[in-house]
Amino acid sequence: MPLAFEVLATCGRARLGRLSTPHGVVATPAFLPVGTLGAVKGLCPADLETAGAEILLANLYHLALRPGIETIERLGGLHAFTGWSRPLLTDSGGYQVLSLASLRRVEDGGVSFRSHLDGSLLRLTPEGVVADQLRLGVDVAMVLDECPPWPIERGEAEVSWERTLGWARRARAAWPGGPGGLFGIVQGSVYPDLRQRAARELAALGFDGYAIGGVAVGESPADRRSVVEWTAPSLPEDRPRYLMGVGYPEDIAHAVRSGVDLFDCVLPARNARHGVLFTRAGPLRIRNARFRDDPRPPDADCRCPVCRRLSRAFLHHLVRSGELTGAVAATVHNLTHYLDFMEHLRQAIQSGVLADFESAPSCGDRAPL
Amino acid sequence: MPLAFEVLATCGRARLGRLSTPHGVVATPAFLPVGTLGAVKGLCPADLETAGAEILLANLYHLALRPGIETIERLGGLHAFTGWSRPLLTDSGGYQVLSLASLRRVEDGGVSFRSHLDGSLLRLTPEGVVADQLRLGVDVAMVLDECPPWPIERGEAEVSWERTLGWARRARAAWPGGPGGLFGIVQGSVYPDLRQRAARELAALGFDGYAIGGVAVGESPADRRSVVEWTAPSLPEDRPRYLMGVGYPEDIAHAVRSGVDLFDCVLPARNARHGVLFTRAGPLRIRNARFRDDPRPPDADCRCPVCRRLSRAFLHHLVRSGELTGAVAATVHNLTHYLDFMEHLRQAIQSGVLADFESAPSCGDRAPL
Repeated sequence: MPLAFEVLATCGRARLGRLSTPHGVVATPAFLPVGTLGAVKGLCPADLETAGAEILLANLYHLALRPGIETIERLGGLHAFTGWSRPLLTDSGGYQVLSLASLRRVEDGGVSFRSHLDGSLLRLTPEGVVADQLRLGVDVAMVLDECPPWPIERGEAEVSWERTLGWARRARAAWPGGPGGLFGIVQGSVYPDLRQRAARELAALGFDGYAIGGVAVGESPADRRSVVEWTAPSLPEDRPRYLMGVGYPEDIAHAVRSGVDLFDCVLPARNARHGVLFTRAGPLRIRNARFRDDPRPPDADCRCPVCRRLSRAFLHHLVRSGELTGAVAATVHNLTHYLDFMEHLRQAIQSGVLADFESAPSCGDRAPL
Repeated sequence: MPLAFEVLATCGRARLGRLSTPHGVVATPAFLPVGTLGAVKGLCPADLETAGAEILLANLYHLALRPGIETIERLGGLHAFTGWSRPLLTDSGGYQVLSLASLRRVEDGGVSFRSHLDGSLLRLTPEGVVADQLRLGVDVAMVLDECPPWPIERGEAEVSWERTLGWARRARAAWPGGPGGLFGIVQGSVYPDLRQRAARELAALGFDGYAIGGVAVGESPADRRSVVEWTAPSLPEDRPRYLMGVGYPEDIAHAVRSGVDLFDCVLPARNARHGVLFTRAGPLRIRNARFRDDPRPPDADCRCPVCRRLSRAFLHHLVRSGELTGAVAATVHNLTHYLDFMEHLRQAIQSGVLADFESAPSCGDRAPL
């Protein structure tokens, strides 16, 4: 079964949609928790289901190094291996081209990494990455791309952009049409014409969905928003659009209004481990002394099991004491908060009131990454 | 309401019992997971309930330093603070007299600690420890004792033993009779006459329950079992008996057969964090390469959410990758294993077949601490 995507309602450019995959249906706009190695740090699959996650992201580069694609394939694929039976998307390793820049060499043929774990060689090619994701049995595979650093000169950006487009053509040619779908990735840094040309060229190749990559790499929020505003409307209307690695609730709300359907970010889980809890009234830095005696839950309007039982004072105590339970509970809460936020966005599109979200408290203060 | 204890059935010296506390009833023999600072590392209260925990242990010394008894009292007591609404028992700090020996000074009046966190002074006295546990609102309070090191010369053991008895008299005098109950603690190292005299003297003081302390401090399993065999039968039959800090399933089974009703130990949780999973077929060192491709759950007969969903291969991958989820999942499993083991012991007493447990697989190989 290939991917199917249906737009059920719109509000301005925002779309309420339904992404149907071999492992189930995802209501969009959707947020993908990040389970790099197959699990969100500290959580079990049931915790993610309770939080309301309908699709999970894992990372091909990391899984290829540990435990290896062959091992996962032998164990029945990534769903069987991780115990997560809902849809899965894997990132291809293009982001690691940036984040592990000192450990890799990029050529037109592909990327060679020195493993960050043991120095062994890992070679990623456009065709190999497609084949590996098919072996994992994921619902959404991503093409190999090169995520350029920010800032980048026009000339360098063009070289990287051409290479990514070439890789996309090779990946598309290698894709057998399913099961699941293959997404192309638009690069082009902050250059509008590169972004828009990439969007058109990828659309002509006919992917199952289209991602906007190369953002959340250091650029300003204004630059990030501009990229989304130029790029999203250039992407095919009948396919899902995915903004990779974004982000803060207010950035997500902005991108949804620009017509984006899918998001992933480490932010809610990483912030949780650093003691930052997202709430409808803005983030709480729970280590702060003002929470020492605060008997209230993190967010009285949150349905998560943490808010139904644990106080800010107890979480303050756990986090300051370095107790694992503090990090786990904060992660459960933050992911629930994000997934509820997506549900509110979906309801707002359905009701035609999305414009009101700009000033909603969920989009309040920025928390540190 | 004070504590009530009822023996419902016996099998040899083993007792099936019911301990009624202000926060609910505990079926005995029972195992108390260790939540030193108010939570089992990595778990939320609901996880403990799902695992079947009916009573949780916390530690007065650690809570007095962080967040402080006053803070907890102001927040409504330890149940309200931790979100754990079932029975709670607090250890008094007597074990820290041993484990933090370099940071404390023991005199007949009490113990002075230099905080292991910031060097501030914490003074524990028999009366103060009773008062603090009343302020916490725990169901079972423990007297202050001195847990002597092992081995210890007879002369030194006697001095420490006398002091602990003196403290027990002062604690008993300070105890207002409830709510909840106060347990005395038998010390006396490996000297049978000291153990038995302490048991009789404490019994004469009329506590709500009696603990055997000063074991699991380095002595051999044979010595530990001897201490239990001398001491348990000397304790009042109509009150609960608690073996502190023990231990391996086979040690628990032995002590149950000697008439002990309550147990606590960090072992299942600490082993879990080190990648050792207890099963009915013996412990699994999950980092071992033989689990890399093993699609089976840790224990096919275990009812825990981990065994219903995650494979040994995935846990192997998570633990070797240092992923938090590995430690959390292993903790959920090991505690469920322990609590199920207690349920099996209770059923065996009820059915009069406890003797068969000696060779049961649950009591198989020893895992490293």
